Amino acid sequence: MAKQKKAPRPKAQTPKGFRDYFGVQVAERKAMLDAIAGVYHRYGFDALESSAVETVEALGKFLPDVDRPNEGVFAWQEEDGDWLALRYDLTAPLARVYAQHRNDLPTPYRRYAMGPVWRNEKPGPGRFRQFYQCDADTVGSASMAADAEICAMLADTLEEVGIPRGDYVVRVNNRKVLNGVLETMGLAEDARRDAVLRTIDKFDKVGEAGVRALLGKGRLDASGAYIDGVGLSDDQAGPVIAFLTSRGTDATKTLDNLRRAVGGSTLGAEGVAELEEIAAHLAAQGYGPDRIVIDPSVVRGLGYYTGPVFEAELTFEILDDKGRKRQFGSVAGGGRYDDLVKRFTGQAVPATGISIGVDRLLAALREKGRAGQPAPGPVVVTVMDRTRMADYQSMVAELRQAGIRAEVYLGNPRNFGNQLKYADNRGSPVAVIQGADEAASGTLQLKDLILGARIAENATLEEWKERPSQIEVPRDELVARVRAMLDAQS
Amino acid sequence: MAKQKKAPRPKAQTPKGFRDYFGVQVAERKAMLDAIAGVYHRYGFDALESSAVETVEALGKFLPDVDRPNEGVFAWQEEDGDWLALRYDLTAPLARVYAQHRNDLPTPYRRYAMGPVWRNEKPGPGRFRQFYQCDADTVGSASMAADAEICAMLADTLEEVGIPRGDYVVRVNNRKVLNGVLETMGLAEDARRDAVLRTIDKFDKVGEAGVRALLGKGRLDASGAYIDGVGLSDDQAGPVIAFLTSRGTDATKTLDNLRRAVGGSTLGAEGVAELEEIAAHLAAQGYGPDRIVIDPSVVRGLGYYTGPVFEAELTFEILDDKGRKRQFGSVAGGGRYDDLVKRFTGQAVPATGISIGVDRLLAALREKGRAGQPAPGPVVVTVMDRTRMADYQSMVAELRQAGIRAEVYLGNPRNFGNQLKYADNRGSPVAVIQGADEAASGTLQLKDLILGARIAENATLEEWKERPSQIEVPRDELVARVRAMLDAQS
Repeated sequence: MAKQKKAPRPKAQTPKGFRDYFGVQVAERKAMLDAIAGVYHRYGFDALESSAVETVEALGKFLPDVDRPNEGVFAWQEEDGDWLALRYDLTAPLARVYAQHRNDLPTPYRRYAMGPVWRNEKPGPGRFRQFYQCDADTVGSASMAADAEICAMLADTLEEVGIPRGDYVVRVNNRKVLNGVLETMGLAEDARRDAVLRTIDKFDKVGEAGVRALLGKGRLDASGAYIDGVGLSDDQAGPVIAFLTSRGTDATKTLDNLRRAVGGSTLGAEGVAELEEIAAHLAAQGYGPDRIVIDPSVVRGLGYYTGPVFEAELTFEILDDKGRKRQFGSVAGGGRYDDLVKRFTGQAVPATGISIGVDRLLAALREKGRAGQPAPGPVVVTVMDRTRMADYQSMVAELRQAGIRAEVYLGNPRNFGNQLKYADNRGSPVAVIQGADEAASGTLQLKDLILGARIAENATLEEWKERPSQIEVPRDELVARVRAMLDAQS
Repeated sequence: MAKQKKAPRPKAQTPKGFRDYFGVQVAERKAMLDAIAGVYHRYGFDALESSAVETVEALGKFLPDVDRPNEGVFAWQEEDGDWLALRYDLTAPLARVYAQHRNDLPTPYRRYAMGPVWRNEKPGPGRFRQFYQCDADTVGSASMAADAEICAMLADTLEEVGIPRGDYVVRVNNRKVLNGVLETMGLAEDARRDAVLRTIDKFDKVGEAGVRALLGKGRLDASGAYIDGVGLSDDQAGPVIAFLTSRGTDATKTLDNLRRAVGGSTLGAEGVAELEEIAAHLAAQGYGPDRIVIDPSVVRGLGYYTGPVFEAELTFEILDDKGRKRQFGSVAGGGRYDDLVKRFTGQAVPATGISIGVDRLLAALREKGRAGQPAPGPVVVTVMDRTRMADYQSMVAELRQAGIRAEVYLGNPRNFGNQLKYADNRGSPVAVIQGADEAASGTLQLKDLILGARIAENATLEEWKERPSQIEVPRDELVARVRAMLDAQS
């Protein structure tokens, strides 16, 4: 007989840039999303869950990071010729939803949304092509009170999930101020505008002298490479430097400095006035500079912001891969985008909002040891005699009915050691054991696996004897005695 | 100047077959998923969230409903040539995850997963191309105890989400029994096998006589069309009829009937023995036929089930579109599939599980008026004087800090009537009003919108006077008086 060719086996692998989340990872994120949703809800925001799939037409060309041309969406063509795509953020779908349902939605419409988004970008270490976003936006209000509210809510949210005051700051700036500065410099429509913006974005890294050099002739970077400058004279670069260094000791001084930096630009003056209004709203609600500050160095790459922009940073230090201290950095950002809905309806609809990077925020909590301890595993009812499975199952049923997480061992019961290994792998707090002897005498053994592990680690012989980690109890006291053991552990 | 051509505006529309979920719809589903996760967790199942995107290779050809050739997946080709696709269920990804991570996972691995899945099928009324599934599976146990546990958990879950005992039944069958019957009939490898299976699937609709006709010469259906039969003689059709009508008054009688129906088939006998074992496990845990029954008429279309199959049905009647009574029907299904992991690893890994149709289950609860009332909207602080926005915002901040859902009106405040309309649209329970007079005297007005609506509907003049729906209160009693008003409403 001729050999049959076998199809090769498929590879059991997530696609490049995707990953799976197990047990405690899922629980941890869910707890955070629930906490955030609680704050959003209290602020009057309503949940929205739009479909993961949108028409490419509806998503448009609003990919946020215009600087990175490799970024894209996952898209495909339908049999009827339509192009569909996975959403790359939660803002573009909001614009579509609002345009589609505006007659049925309240105005202003405060909504929050949480869920995965997809980016067709090159994956890298810690950079995934599917990740969670958690957004809140107010659509239909031009009032700076809406922007102030978003900032206040962001501060409240960070505290609610476990970042204490002092470990974070929400920084507020305004695109119009920056555009005003560029106007003053005669660069608003100039080809060098983008080069100037990119340079401003490096302020955090290279500082004032670095930016000055990069706006002028250029500079050697840390690796020894020479970076060409934008070619502005010192005078020309003046307003940018004034803008970047305008942060004063309080909001009033910062605003004074900004007013000088925007010179005669009407747009710039408008931006400063908006910042002033936001600062007043926040002060009235008691949000001081320990939580929210006006900070002109916030630029953010998003092309679609048209006014105020926000960024939440965690200010505590962590060690990077090379053991160097650095600030944890940004965990949320947003701003006002008054043009997104207009694409659909032709009418400008003012909107403002934020997006929280849930996975980064979780990483920060883990870094600080505040992500919560893994929940204990289930009580494991072991199987000493496979013909008595029904007995073991009634034990497990009793425990569950009492609200105790429990399971019967469902693997091959022959090797009892494997059952205890399994219980250990599951993080089980208690094992229930009933062999023929115990069954005959109406008893069972409870093995305290937490205490057992502790004793095995560091107990003296006396302690071993004193605190037995395994006890025999009457069968009909199963629930009560397991509960007592769990209580003693916690 | 030549007219510039404008690009046409994009349509603000969800793609065909997709939809958005708003506010209470999101909250309602979340509450149900949380309740289900609670039961799964108590049974020792761990959460798994796999990526929405899989390689087409990993998904394989396991589209469950082989009967519907139009069904497909949303797939696209990557620049590097790989084909990716959106998952169409949560079982195929589980097989991939288990094969990929099996060395790090406990065995048996009990996991649950909840989230959207995507089907590239023709959308229809109430049929969407993205919907939620909610699965629980045990991988790595061949024991019928695992299947019994899944059935018991399914029953517990239905009760937990609000379907009372008596309004549902979990029906259990076994593919091996049916295959045994086909073996007895000499049809196991016959071309007519699929036609027989399709006929069996119609038993619920056409009854015993209908199936008999369809297995033989054929019959006129309700619309008057003649449906060709399979062409079996009455004798040949005997075992199918015996199988379909084998449900007895209790599990013992049903099993006896099944034993006769499978005749000398070893496979059939194995199936009956498995059902017997499941019945014994369930009896030991106290799950009687009021909750879980052995029912040979459960066939389920899924090609990959290899042993026990389960189906949860809601038994209460609803009115269909035409006002006719019918049973609500299936809300969950599953079974044992021992071959899914083998695709990847070459080794058979026994597995069994269920999938709950969350959206159908929600529809059922709504039908019975048990889906929970919509949560009240936020307290709305109205804006009488836009220069005093800061005051209004401190009111709203106080309310939120006290845990009361509240928002300030952020629309154009000129028309006060619009503000009350907005509050009404939001389902707001209380409006807070403070004009110049109240501000001067340190007071504010609280308007009870729930009471107001009730009075407007059916109050007499006396009641109007007796229970004013608007009261003046001191400014510093805002939180206490709003809380009192909310308490009185509930």
